[in-house]
Amino acid sequence: MTKAQVVAQLLPSTYAPKETGASFAPTNIALCKYWGKRNTELNLPATSSLSIALPGKGAFTKVMLSTQAEDTVTLNGLSIATNTSFYRRLTQFIELFRKKVMWRLHIEIQMTIPVAAGLASSACGFAALTMALNDLFQWQLPLRDLSILARLGSGSAARSLWSGFVEWHQGEREDGMDCYAEPLSMQWPSLCVGILTISQKEKFLSSREAMLRTVKTSDLYRCWPDKVQRDLTQLKRAIHEGDFTTFGMTAESNALAMHATMLSSWPPICYALPETLAAMQQLWELRQQGIEVYFTQDAGPNLKFLFLEESKPLINKQFSNLDIIYPFKQRVG
Amino acid sequence: MTKAQVVAQLLPSTYAPKETGASFAPTNIALCKYWGKRNTELNLPATSSLSIALPGKGAFTKVMLSTQAEDTVTLNGLSIATNTSFYRRLTQFIELFRKKVMWRLHIEIQMTIPVAAGLASSACGFAALTMALNDLFQWQLPLRDLSILARLGSGSAARSLWSGFVEWHQGEREDGMDCYAEPLSMQWPSLCVGILTISQKEKFLSSREAMLRTVKTSDLYRCWPDKVQRDLTQLKRAIHEGDFTTFGMTAESNALAMHATMLSSWPPICYALPETLAAMQQLWELRQQGIEVYFTQDAGPNLKFLFLEESKPLINKQFSNLDIIYPFKQRVG
Repeated sequence: MTKAQVVAQLLPSTYAPKETGASFAPTNIALCKYWGKRNTELNLPATSSLSIALPGKGAFTKVMLSTQAEDTVTLNGLSIATNTSFYRRLTQFIELFRKKVMWRLHIEIQMTIPVAAGLASSACGFAALTMALNDLFQWQLPLRDLSILARLGSGSAARSLWSGFVEWHQGEREDGMDCYAEPLSMQWPSLCVGILTISQKEKFLSSREAMLRTVKTSDLYRCWPDKVQRDLTQLKRAIHEGDFTTFGMTAESNALAMHATMLSSWPPICYALPETLAAMQQLWELRQQGIEVYFTQDAGPNLKFLFLEESKPLINKQFSNLDIIYPFKQRVG
Repeated sequence: MTKAQVVAQLLPSTYAPKETGASFAPTNIALCKYWGKRNTELNLPATSSLSIALPGKGAFTKVMLSTQAEDTVTLNGLSIATNTSFYRRLTQFIELFRKKVMWRLHIEIQMTIPVAAGLASSACGFAALTMALNDLFQWQLPLRDLSILARLGSGSAARSLWSGFVEWHQGEREDGMDCYAEPLSMQWPSLCVGILTISQKEKFLSSREAMLRTVKTSDLYRCWPDKVQRDLTQLKRAIHEGDFTTFGMTAESNALAMHATMLSSWPPICYALPETLAAMQQLWELRQQGIEVYFTQDAGPNLKFLFLEESKPLINKQFSNLDIIYPFKQRVG
């Protein structure tokens, strides 16, 4: 099964383009991580996962039919050269939708987060692009189908089409038609996410590469899918019951276990910098003092803290440069 | 099965004490780690393990019958108070051998390594004490039996009775009579171990506690025994064939996987300090430049580098405060 075959199953036979298509997609932070694929071509994950969207952080994407000989892309106002991997990844995705008609696109992306620093820039990037294409060509596809299409660009993009908590189902089908995300209905207004930026440098190894290496070489990875299964159930229950202790604990433990599978890969993968570890230890000390704060970490050195509004003053005192987001109180775009 | 029952199986019915018993035991660095017990009372490990002894680093222990009302202990010339955990652990061990006769001991320990900083001070401590008791009471037990007795004090003490490479067999019996260590005959004269001391502070959590917590709470630990099985086979083959790349890689990967099981425990256990991580990353950079150096790490923040004599000048240039030991060239005691 190829990506093109998946696209052919979902798209209408003819498109009815408007002048401009546009969309915003928020970045998402996984609380139960996606790590490892069961199908690398279609980005089908080895496990389900669960995320929270960060309102205001993400990608605004505008697409227009163009009269140029090739697609043109700007990122935050700057033109992207055609020989960059960023350009190639984007246009390979566009290619899936081009069919026989040889239209070209002009794509304008405004990102409100650093690119490729473990803040899921490719997730919101591909989600926004997919939704903008749906708008431009008036496909009128449901979000569930757009989630499947966005996944073909980047796995975790499947989760970036909604605000709030989102669950991405691993599915069982070989064509991935049951591998889509959907939002949970639960809200948690007092929940805060604090982003601790330790480095904005591009990561030394893409998540894609890191995932492949882990699945291939880590002797501990075999235990990961069961861990995810347990954590996912526990997280959903904690969200349902508003049990913040279980919620935070499970998210932190899940992130640490993901990084543990990377550490036990060969060559070892360690996204933490010394400063990351120092911040973790500072957070653990705060917790020992009775302040309920947990963290999660993705494929990069930055940390995302999880806490409730009531703890904000104390946490802010220790970590003054924390970028604090209310996932359920702020506007999405 | 209790410790006392094990001792009763091995010791002669009467002792013939000399005036003084003395022994030296080297500390040992596990290349394939011991992490997790199948029996906590008898310190029977979940897996076999493999270590290398560090000549010159260890415990010199002298024991004498005493006329005092209780056992007396000195460490590096200083008297150890009876209300310390160090004293209690030692005398609880002595108690096993006391039988009906109420003799008391004076014990003098000279340690050439820092205590409880992940340099296996309890391993060489209990090994030296066991051998000194064997000398004092003229039990004339073979080293294999003394290895079983030393294990009752501290698991990894079973491996500290020899120089060079030592394998500790996990055994299957409930009484642990097949759970002893023995030396490998292979020598590797150009092998160097470099100790990078990052902190000499006592560790925040004993290995004993950390092990228990890992076995109880880490979802990845279930994969650990198979990993050890593979690593052990690979290490022995690499030692046999003088294949340093496989040797170093396997030792480093094994250590990282052990720490990975700790990271995925709850509460998370992380013995690395930010400086530990910085040193690892510096070492990985050296390796990327083609210099063959690997590390191992125990339940503490310090690292032990593994390299061959030929790389010593280059490595010393990067890590000037490395304490370099030749396990097969130096005298043991």
